[in-house]
Amino acid sequence: MVAKLRAIPLGGLGEIGKNMMVLEFADDLILVDAGLMFPDEEMLGVDLVIPDISYVSEHIQMLRAILITHGHEDHTGALPYVLPRLRLPNGKMPPIYCTRLTRGLIAVKLDEHRLLKDADLRIVRPGERIKLGAFNVEFVHITHSIPDSASLAIHTPIGTVFHTGDFKFDHTPVMGDPPDLSRIAELGRKGVLLLFSDSTYADTTGYTPSERSVSETLDRIMADAPGRVIVATFASLISRIQQVIDAATKHGRRVFITGRSMLDNAKMAIEQGYLDAPDDVMASLDKMKKLPPERIAIITTGAQGEPTSALVRMANRDHRHIEIQAGDTVVLSSSAIPGNELLINRTIDNLYRLGANVLFSRIASVHVRGHAAQEELKLMLGLVKPQYFVPVHGEYRHLWMHSAIAQSMGVPSENVFTLEDGDILEIDGKGARVAGRASADWVYVDGLAVGIDRIVLRDRAHLAGDGVIVAIVAIDKHTGKPIGRPDVVSRGFIESEMSDGLMERAKEVIVQALKGGDHVANRADFNTRVHDALSRFLYDQTRRRPMVLPVSVEV
Amino acid sequence: MVAKLRAIPLGGLGEIGKNMMVLEFADDLILVDAGLMFPDEEMLGVDLVIPDISYVSEHIQMLRAILITHGHEDHTGALPYVLPRLRLPNGKMPPIYCTRLTRGLIAVKLDEHRLLKDADLRIVRPGERIKLGAFNVEFVHITHSIPDSASLAIHTPIGTVFHTGDFKFDHTPVMGDPPDLSRIAELGRKGVLLLFSDSTYADTTGYTPSERSVSETLDRIMADAPGRVIVATFASLISRIQQVIDAATKHGRRVFITGRSMLDNAKMAIEQGYLDAPDDVMASLDKMKKLPPERIAIITTGAQGEPTSALVRMANRDHRHIEIQAGDTVVLSSSAIPGNELLINRTIDNLYRLGANVLFSRIASVHVRGHAAQEELKLMLGLVKPQYFVPVHGEYRHLWMHSAIAQSMGVPSENVFTLEDGDILEIDGKGARVAGRASADWVYVDGLAVGIDRIVLRDRAHLAGDGVIVAIVAIDKHTGKPIGRPDVVSRGFIESEMSDGLMERAKEVIVQALKGGDHVANRADFNTRVHDALSRFLYDQTRRRPMVLPVSVEV
Repeated sequence: MVAKLRAIPLGGLGEIGKNMMVLEFADDLILVDAGLMFPDEEMLGVDLVIPDISYVSEHIQMLRAILITHGHEDHTGALPYVLPRLRLPNGKMPPIYCTRLTRGLIAVKLDEHRLLKDADLRIVRPGERIKLGAFNVEFVHITHSIPDSASLAIHTPIGTVFHTGDFKFDHTPVMGDPPDLSRIAELGRKGVLLLFSDSTYADTTGYTPSERSVSETLDRIMADAPGRVIVATFASLISRIQQVIDAATKHGRRVFITGRSMLDNAKMAIEQGYLDAPDDVMASLDKMKKLPPERIAIITTGAQGEPTSALVRMANRDHRHIEIQAGDTVVLSSSAIPGNELLINRTIDNLYRLGANVLFSRIASVHVRGHAAQEELKLMLGLVKPQYFVPVHGEYRHLWMHSAIAQSMGVPSENVFTLEDGDILEIDGKGARVAGRASADWVYVDGLAVGIDRIVLRDRAHLAGDGVIVAIVAIDKHTGKPIGRPDVVSRGFIESEMSDGLMERAKEVIVQALKGGDHVANRADFNTRVHDALSRFLYDQTRRRPMVLPVSVEV
Repeated sequence: MVAKLRAIPLGGLGEIGKNMMVLEFADDLILVDAGLMFPDEEMLGVDLVIPDISYVSEHIQMLRAILITHGHEDHTGALPYVLPRLRLPNGKMPPIYCTRLTRGLIAVKLDEHRLLKDADLRIVRPGERIKLGAFNVEFVHITHSIPDSASLAIHTPIGTVFHTGDFKFDHTPVMGDPPDLSRIAELGRKGVLLLFSDSTYADTTGYTPSERSVSETLDRIMADAPGRVIVATFASLISRIQQVIDAATKHGRRVFITGRSMLDNAKMAIEQGYLDAPDDVMASLDKMKKLPPERIAIITTGAQGEPTSALVRMANRDHRHIEIQAGDTVVLSSSAIPGNELLINRTIDNLYRLGANVLFSRIASVHVRGHAAQEELKLMLGLVKPQYFVPVHGEYRHLWMHSAIAQSMGVPSENVFTLEDGDILEIDGKGARVAGRASADWVYVDGLAVGIDRIVLRDRAHLAGDGVIVAIVAIDKHTGKPIGRPDVVSRGFIESEMSDGLMERAKEVIVQALKGGDHVANRADFNTRVHDALSRFLYDQTRRRPMVLPVSVEV
């Protein structure tokens, strides 16, 4: 058997290799990350999108471990769905390796799904080596918008693979150490066969500012705001929560927390020693009543305008404890995840309507990106000096730009692979090539089901556009002829005041369509006649195309 | 009767006063603009959103004219829908006043709707005065991203109202004259009672660059691109089309145009003398075959990723004449209208996949905004020096920021009115106040219907989320008892391979729900029993909530 390294990027949605990477050598297979994506507006009714693990399932006897780079949903969130489907031949779940905070966040998630007891979570310290069959894995400390993030140096018999994970080069992080530049440089000097690097902001010139730059803004806001300061951010952005607590405390404000996921994460982070907070930070919001507004700061969920979040409930005057009032300052310490703009803007508008002053990243320095911009991508390439380069994490245009950057840094164009999810990259002594495709469908989670199919989504889109009309005809089972007058029921099609006359005429259209007798015994023919006649009639009358469902009852 | 001026902003959607402004004095009423908005993702199946004209209809005998500030859809697009509903007591349509290019664009639109012959379109030159009852209206030349844009100075017996329309201060426009600063200043010096000013970019600091700044970029692209250059932009952005033609011609490229609306507008603009183009610019794309790629430039629709546009068809390898190939340069000379990001990004990604180089506003200076930024808003306020200020055109947060700017420029806070659509602002000798509300619903256009109601949209959202299940039961009309076994039909609910067993059990649930005999004669009771039992069962089994439609057939 020739020694070949195989790599397969898998993603939930559009961003290539975002949610999972398969690495395979001889008889061993490891996964990097197991994240989820939130559906876009066209995926009607879908709750989540997770990577397609059918290739991994087919090679389950080779699976050695899942390595998680950091604690964000798009890298950990699929675990509750894929772990039960990735039981090893011995019946156990595969071990999950990650750093300490990442472990804490995963544990919260698995516990919700009652999977924590069964799972095999193992904490790794940066620098430690883990032997996984042919792979020898080392976690390398890196910076991102969550502490305890790691890049991975994966040593294989034919060379080292370096996977950056999500990263930016933050030399003055709010928590933890700066990135381990010297280890990355050392790996580069010894030779790296293949680099996978984060492309999320490959379209952005310059450097991403340090997380610390947000501290100054928060400090000024806490000092100057005439009343309460309410800061919304991501529940997993532990360092930002720390920044808010520090700035508030410095200016004599007591900090309260609202929103379930924010409370859960803060509790875990305090217990694990990642959050340095006053003892009373988890106190009930009731305690707020006794304090003057300028002594209060509140940390909340809802920075993406999520309809059931605490901030959106405040904006809609629907929060049990907090009523927005003139003098309040609301800070959205986040940037919009594409697709959420409408919800976020509506939330901001409603907060202004209630008299609050609102600060958000478009008008104030209340957030910085979590990913490397172009100069940092060049720095990574310059340190790692890979033989082969594969951009990951980003939509196709980001990968394309990152590939162009790599080529401008001297990686030969034939050594740069701009892959799609499911492409199997194969590297051996003779070179590298795309050697086929693995299944890489988008897997939809909807309610209890994993893997909803496209016909269901197509039907939902049809229903969403123009509604449904059900045509009901009773049929004599002996003669095959219609009995009585057809009935019609519609929903989401047309307003009731317009529909009465139309529905009566629709019934007549059905009667006419079924004239001619003996065809009716044939169910397919019945459906076609009613469907076609009714669709044509309704389009003529309304220029709409509702879903037409002919139903016959044999009696 | 006390002499009172009334103003009512009306909008299609979210942006206040965007699509229409009602002005009323004594017995006279005039409208400024009649535009439309495109529905957001939550307005399922809706084609367009237009302003609510019920207040105007109720005062139709007072209506003197519709004034249109410029030729963009969001200021003209509702005309085909509102004109037939705004016939004057004498049966005629109200006169429409506008500048020459605006008239050309409106005529194209009204012709499509077979309304041109009936309409009364009148061209106004800047500086001309129009007497409309108590109002004396003057069009003042202004700059925006379309030529022939106007602000309006509306003289009333109690003072002058200045409405900016959409604007930016472009001192070096690509077409036509710079803004008529001196007339605006003169009006300001004589005294302006009330200023309505464009707030679209009130959240943006500094100045908006001149349209001319795009010329440099286009020039460089046309000179350097190794193959064809394909530029997508708005069909109404006549000046940008001119810029592309100029740059292409300068560098020896022949220009072709594709996309129906682009062809229609270019034809009109050439006829009206607004577009200076070579004779063969409207030639068939066949002619392209004979030219080498570096001699070709193509102007196309699709800059917003519209699914049926020419550019999107190219990106999907679905355009009849143009196949994207390596060496092509595609320029998206536009910015994303909020909500279109997903479609635009997908189009860009697909173009890269086909080997094109893609340039868009995030990574290259291929577009400038069409609206004034903060320093220009201050300049307008400084020139006009209004007694009362009302920000318009923009979502609530933009109005809020614009109001703050006006106050910082010295307009007393009690003279600044941040209105909502439908608010009736009343001004007389004693002051100004919000004196009630006019109807200002969003009016949806869906197929042939104008004014689709909220129940229909709610039902569509329900159907979109989890689909529909129809439960059919035949009932003996004499005994009121079910006959035979119930049937169920579902769409958009659950994939077929999972549904067979579930549907059989659902039928059994219906049978059980209807046990107990004589209730069934009552249709409401039948519906409730089947609906509740089935909903509960399906949620238990799937965690989804399809729309349940019970249908009984009496035989």
